[in-house]
Amino acid sequence: MVSRSIDASALRAGDRRALAKAITLIESQRDDDREASQALLNDLLPHTGNSIRIGITGVPGVGKSTFIEAFGLHLVASGHRVAVLAVDPSSPLAGGSILGDKTRMEALSREQNAFIRPSPAGSALGGVALKTRESMLLCEAAGFDVILVETVGVGQSEHQVAGMLDYFCLLMLPGGGDELQGIKKGILELADTIVINKADGDGAGLARMSRQHTASAMALIKHSESWQPQVLTCSALHNEGVTDIWDMVQAFRNQSADGVDVIAVKRAEQNLAWMNQLVDELLRLGLKRHPRVAQEMPALEQQVKNAEITPLAAAMEVMRLSLS
Amino acid sequence: MVSRSIDASALRAGDRRALAKAITLIESQRDDDREASQALLNDLLPHTGNSIRIGITGVPGVGKSTFIEAFGLHLVASGHRVAVLAVDPSSPLAGGSILGDKTRMEALSREQNAFIRPSPAGSALGGVALKTRESMLLCEAAGFDVILVETVGVGQSEHQVAGMLDYFCLLMLPGGGDELQGIKKGILELADTIVINKADGDGAGLARMSRQHTASAMALIKHSESWQPQVLTCSALHNEGVTDIWDMVQAFRNQSADGVDVIAVKRAEQNLAWMNQLVDELLRLGLKRHPRVAQEMPALEQQVKNAEITPLAAAMEVMRLSLS
Repeated sequence: MVSRSIDASALRAGDRRALAKAITLIESQRDDDREASQALLNDLLPHTGNSIRIGITGVPGVGKSTFIEAFGLHLVASGHRVAVLAVDPSSPLAGGSILGDKTRMEALSREQNAFIRPSPAGSALGGVALKTRESMLLCEAAGFDVILVETVGVGQSEHQVAGMLDYFCLLMLPGGGDELQGIKKGILELADTIVINKADGDGAGLARMSRQHTASAMALIKHSESWQPQVLTCSALHNEGVTDIWDMVQAFRNQSADGVDVIAVKRAEQNLAWMNQLVDELLRLGLKRHPRVAQEMPALEQQVKNAEITPLAAAMEVMRLSLS
Repeated sequence: MVSRSIDASALRAGDRRALAKAITLIESQRDDDREASQALLNDLLPHTGNSIRIGITGVPGVGKSTFIEAFGLHLVASGHRVAVLAVDPSSPLAGGSILGDKTRMEALSREQNAFIRPSPAGSALGGVALKTRESMLLCEAAGFDVILVETVGVGQSEHQVAGMLDYFCLLMLPGGGDELQGIKKGILELADTIVINKADGDGAGLARMSRQHTASAMALIKHSESWQPQVLTCSALHNEGVTDIWDMVQAFRNQSADGVDVIAVKRAEQNLAWMNQLVDELLRLGLKRHPRVAQEMPALEQQVKNAEITPLAAAMEVMRLSLS
């Protein structure tokens, strides 16, 4: 049982070991730990929300960790406290997450005002998104004012975390449309900004072309009403263009439609949507655990697949069984 | 009560008045009619599925009805039986649907082998999608082998019906990216083919440009693995390019990954997904009708919006209330 060892006040004071322990508690599958973590979260909730939540994604090889290190070091240097969380639905319980490799982000991990946490394993309810969302709240309670959520760019995880982020940044490689093929459907639509990374050496010219090319593509893709996604170039390796990206985040944060705090509005909607999603999951979970339903479901699904009964008839039968 | 007057054998024989009555039954909100319509559907189910289900959408002014009339007349002339259903979530119970205007598709509506049905009003469970899905099955039982489902291009309805269609056709106007702004987010991703309509007169040259422009945009948007959406031009008004579109539908229909019937596979998945969606809706409906939940929900939602409790805590409270 992890919960005994949590020191909430140390966490509030920004102690990274206390924060790490608290996240371990949150990730625990044990029922008593779940209760303890919920209690902890409710205590800390008044102290959460004081950060900008930035998602960073891109296909493998785009240079996510190099970028996050450069970006994070820049932010720490300008007085911010930066937490990096990774979401990798493919990572097994044993670990082996995308941030598992300790050689990544060495310089950033040595910074007092940086906190790096590998990906949690997916749990039943809420999946990795729930763990990440709760870890994010803990980081905020510990006084981290910039949260970077790294995802692997395989699609699934991006959609999971998009609902908890203020800002989504998609990293791309220089060089036209073909490179885009690696980017899964729907990711472009999530992006608040696209950064063409590795805009250095031979890549510089190519990156400028890609920027125009991508910008015109983004113009075709409907985004939020208030914000048109921008396309920037950067060289994380040579630390070029990193400040522009933070300026862009500031511009996004400071945008206000008639004095309305767009991020506050967005978060309120996100919380509500997340609550509804969890209710749906809990309802489905309850249904799946119902013995009669569990027993009859496979046959019903097969009949529906074969168009032997209408989906509605099958759905109503499921409900009938659930009440039996 | 409508159900008394349904003549299933006349419907099976292709009688359009019997079909119209059956659809009216399906659209009825009365419980006894719902039961009767479900019984009718289950009887007819073995005779359904023998059609290609084509969605046609586009922003107002793109010429949907002109296109559907030209396309439908071409199909009827080549021996097909064509049913046109319209989905318009905004249409009130009183009617006033997008096909309500009787002056539309005059020539097509005079054809023996064409059946045109205005939009149903949205109902609680399954919404207009359920009505349309069931109407589609009735049309198939009545021997219509091409079903054209017209949507208004406002986004919502397209996503509702995409899950019941074999093929989605997006109509666009000639002329660059700006015209695309009218097309809601996510519609491009649904399209199996894009047709630049009004490719005539001054529009002809512009349409050719738009075709290239749109084709390159589509290349950036991930679609299904097996099918890369094509972009065609047509002039419904002058009946040009209409046959090409039907050829395209045939090509799509006849594509087979290693002898697998892609449409059969797609429909099996659609049916299963639709069943699960209806189960979710029924679960939510049951929850909403629970007095304690209905009473406490608004306060809980407000607390979640204000981040006074975590979405998980609120969701668990909802479940607790539902069991009380």
